[in-house]
Amino acid sequence: MASEALLVAMVVALALSNALLVTSESEYNKVKIWPMPASVSYGHSHLYLSNDFEHSTNYDSGLLKDAFNRMLAVIRLDHIIEANFSALHLSPLLRGLHIVISSSNHQLQYGIDESYKLTVPSPENPGYAHLEAQTVYGALHGLQTFSQLCHFNFTSRVLEVHMSPWTIIDQPRFSYRGLLIDTSRHYLPLPIVKKVIDSMSYAKLNVLHWHIVDSQSFPLEIPSYPKLWDGAYSPSERYTVADAAEVVSYAQQRGINVLAEIDVPGHARSWGTGYPSLWPSKDCQQPLDVSKEFTFKVIDGILSDFSKIFNFKFVHLGGDEVNTSCWTITPHISKWLREHGMNESQAYQYFILRAQNVALSHGYEIVNWEETFNDFGNKLSRKTVVHNWLGGGVARQVVASGLRCIVSNQDKWYLDHLDTTWQEFYANEPLTNITNLKQQKLVIGGEVCMWGETIDGSDIEQTIWPRAAAAAERLWTPYDKLAKNPREVTGRLAHSGVY
Amino acid sequence: MASEALLVAMVVALALSNALLVTSESEYNKVKIWPMPASVSYGHSHLYLSNDFEHSTNYDSGLLKDAFNRMLAVIRLDHIIEANFSALHLSPLLRGLHIVISSSNHQLQYGIDESYKLTVPSPENPGYAHLEAQTVYGALHGLQTFSQLCHFNFTSRVLEVHMSPWTIIDQPRFSYRGLLIDTSRHYLPLPIVKKVIDSMSYAKLNVLHWHIVDSQSFPLEIPSYPKLWDGAYSPSERYTVADAAEVVSYAQQRGINVLAEIDVPGHARSWGTGYPSLWPSKDCQQPLDVSKEFTFKVIDGILSDFSKIFNFKFVHLGGDEVNTSCWTITPHISKWLREHGMNESQAYQYFILRAQNVALSHGYEIVNWEETFNDFGNKLSRKTVVHNWLGGGVARQVVASGLRCIVSNQDKWYLDHLDTTWQEFYANEPLTNITNLKQQKLVIGGEVCMWGETIDGSDIEQTIWPRAAAAAERLWTPYDKLAKNPREVTGRLAHSGVY
Repeated sequence: MASEALLVAMVVALALSNALLVTSESEYNKVKIWPMPASVSYGHSHLYLSNDFEHSTNYDSGLLKDAFNRMLAVIRLDHIIEANFSALHLSPLLRGLHIVISSSNHQLQYGIDESYKLTVPSPENPGYAHLEAQTVYGALHGLQTFSQLCHFNFTSRVLEVHMSPWTIIDQPRFSYRGLLIDTSRHYLPLPIVKKVIDSMSYAKLNVLHWHIVDSQSFPLEIPSYPKLWDGAYSPSERYTVADAAEVVSYAQQRGINVLAEIDVPGHARSWGTGYPSLWPSKDCQQPLDVSKEFTFKVIDGILSDFSKIFNFKFVHLGGDEVNTSCWTITPHISKWLREHGMNESQAYQYFILRAQNVALSHGYEIVNWEETFNDFGNKLSRKTVVHNWLGGGVARQVVASGLRCIVSNQDKWYLDHLDTTWQEFYANEPLTNITNLKQQKLVIGGEVCMWGETIDGSDIEQTIWPRAAAAAERLWTPYDKLAKNPREVTGRLAHSGVY
Repeated sequence: MASEALLVAMVVALALSNALLVTSESEYNKVKIWPMPASVSYGHSHLYLSNDFEHSTNYDSGLLKDAFNRMLAVIRLDHIIEANFSALHLSPLLRGLHIVISSSNHQLQYGIDESYKLTVPSPENPGYAHLEAQTVYGALHGLQTFSQLCHFNFTSRVLEVHMSPWTIIDQPRFSYRGLLIDTSRHYLPLPIVKKVIDSMSYAKLNVLHWHIVDSQSFPLEIPSYPKLWDGAYSPSERYTVADAAEVVSYAQQRGINVLAEIDVPGHARSWGTGYPSLWPSKDCQQPLDVSKEFTFKVIDGILSDFSKIFNFKFVHLGGDEVNTSCWTITPHISKWLREHGMNESQAYQYFILRAQNVALSHGYEIVNWEETFNDFGNKLSRKTVVHNWLGGGVARQVVASGLRCIVSNQDKWYLDHLDTTWQEFYANEPLTNITNLKQQKLVIGGEVCMWGETIDGSDIEQTIWPRAAAAAERLWTPYDKLAKNPREVTGRLAHSGVY
């Protein structure tokens, strides 16, 4: 890809320049950026930020301007800037940031170029910093990095950049860097979801996996089947279509895609509150009734409505933890199974593949939890991404079979496992035992999962961070720049303010 | 006072009108306002808020406009407003709020008139709600109440006011309604302090008691003695003078006074990090050295600097938990005690009274913790407010002696006591066993205390609320409207969104 070639060229150019290219651990420790960029060089000067620090750009969009203003608000948050000019008069001033974006396309999507190059100050124009990127979303990452270079100086009472000049050339190791939130086990108010999205952007995570509905509650409005959200916990614990669209738009403005999930057929009891015929029977309410056409009509309606809100390339169809006993003990379903010559396991496969076809018909590629692969991987659509969760070994098998994989092994990357430390989150390597380069590329990334049974809006952020930030560096930073021992990065993580 | 007469007149007028005046418990349960206003009547109609809901006022100040805009942002926070006009066309619309303020003085201070009257809609102008108040700070409370009347309707997708017409006539029972935060045991970043202030305003609390420094750390800049903040936990865990002024200004814009505290001589070890001569000795660092003139020079410098930032009528001088053993075992102090004919207890009294005189010289009245009263109450300045904390009985003795009192008995109103339930916070009555009306008036209010040993910015809000809200109703609502059994108000508290 053109941008990769550009990156290589820039790294080479940098290595030939006079600046100190960071390659040793002791030098890393001086760099207080999280996640660690692909390539960093720094010097020994200080710069002071002008009080009216501004941006200029060739890119005509409110998105970038809003992001710049948000960045300014973040770096000005903790202290009042009130310059003590006597401490300042001889110091070089940074007046603004010039941002150059090559592509005018600002459509966010999986796999877009997220690279950027940041120089502070610009060699051509020392009063300004310079940020260039292929896409505006690469520039957003560059703004996050820039914000982490700024420190409040308690003597001069202004913001300053230490260790200038900086040259940072950066791009992510994995293109899918996700965080799961779960609004079925606890409803999360819209402002909380937005806060989580804000904090994701600080760590350069780029996919919000929204596990919207599950057995416990169905909080989202589905216009095609307007009784579905009768399964919400309460009338006020619901999201309208406009609320969901707001989540998508808010996330996209921060470079984050939203992966919407319905978890069928096993995690869907709440669907039957509004439509009881989706239950096998009143006494046996899960999984969804595999024998009824209505079940697939509802899935089709949901995914049709989804396609108007959730414009990410992928939709997540779940498929995990399906206990099919309700199917065998419910007379009309066991009769249907007999008539169609299916056992329970075949019916599970039938359900998953039919749901996949519905999703494909709406233009989505599919993510499914790993049980679908473990049970009948060779039958899955080739457009499937297998979402690992059970343990550490399945990614290798998935990519060997030619399918793509997202890594979320629960022993290391489940945030509801409160006894898993940030060090374990940091050390979890998605490519473990995958040596073939082509197969490595099929691991599109990883995701940390904040299941909602034991958290709500009051403690979700505190439970996510800093552990998700540890995983975020694993997913962003080149493998050879990751700390072999997480202990080495403790100071930088503590300093990063990501959490 | 004129406004009290006005209030009485309004209540009488209301009682004679047709509206239903809320007097019974079952009617209270329908009113979802927290804290419960002094007088409420409501009807049975619905009103819808216009999308461009606006305010008009005779009061020319950005303070009110900003407060109105914040109120709008709060009520619009949880859902996207996107009117479904087919569900709306026959419903009466509320186009705005007209606000009339009698006094043009917008100086916030202890004891200002906080009353307001809110009618929704205005009888004279049915398209508008009407809010009147003596001061802009009364109007701020009225805005909070108005916000609690607004509910998102999931059918019409707009905000609506239920149970209109409303007539609410309101004023607080106590003029001092405080919350203590402690930035010595854990530093709280500026944005966290602001969040706490925001949430206080929702509960109509009006004093932020800022326990700034203590033995553990000294985070605040004191220009007169610039090494004092060397006692901060770290260079970044500090507040500049401009930061402190920002806290005061931010709070005042929300009708909240800031009561600054230095806790002398017993809780001040951190002062000696920058000025070791304030310690009795290097090995015995607390209380402050009573024998040195320098000690009182530093207190004078601090209070001089305070007087430029903290313009509340009161300053808090602490005075609790003074263990004087360092004074007796340190040779130069025990010598000084002998020369001045003082025992330890007399030296404690000498210290407190001398510090009081310094505060008085800077124009402050004084708050001191109750040990000062318990030990030598008759010697305290008559401008002292005694701050109860040890137990339930002292308030009666304080007001019997003619001094004023703030109630914070630790068994009921200490938020760091995690096993004290919200019901206990609610039931704690400041006037227990005080029957004399004149003495009752000397109990100026109460305060809930969020000591900082076991909380930080990540969980302070979750630890404060909803229990502080329970106390806030005790401090705001007329005694005879308070629930006898807190269980009765569970639903209203849960609904209030104060926390």
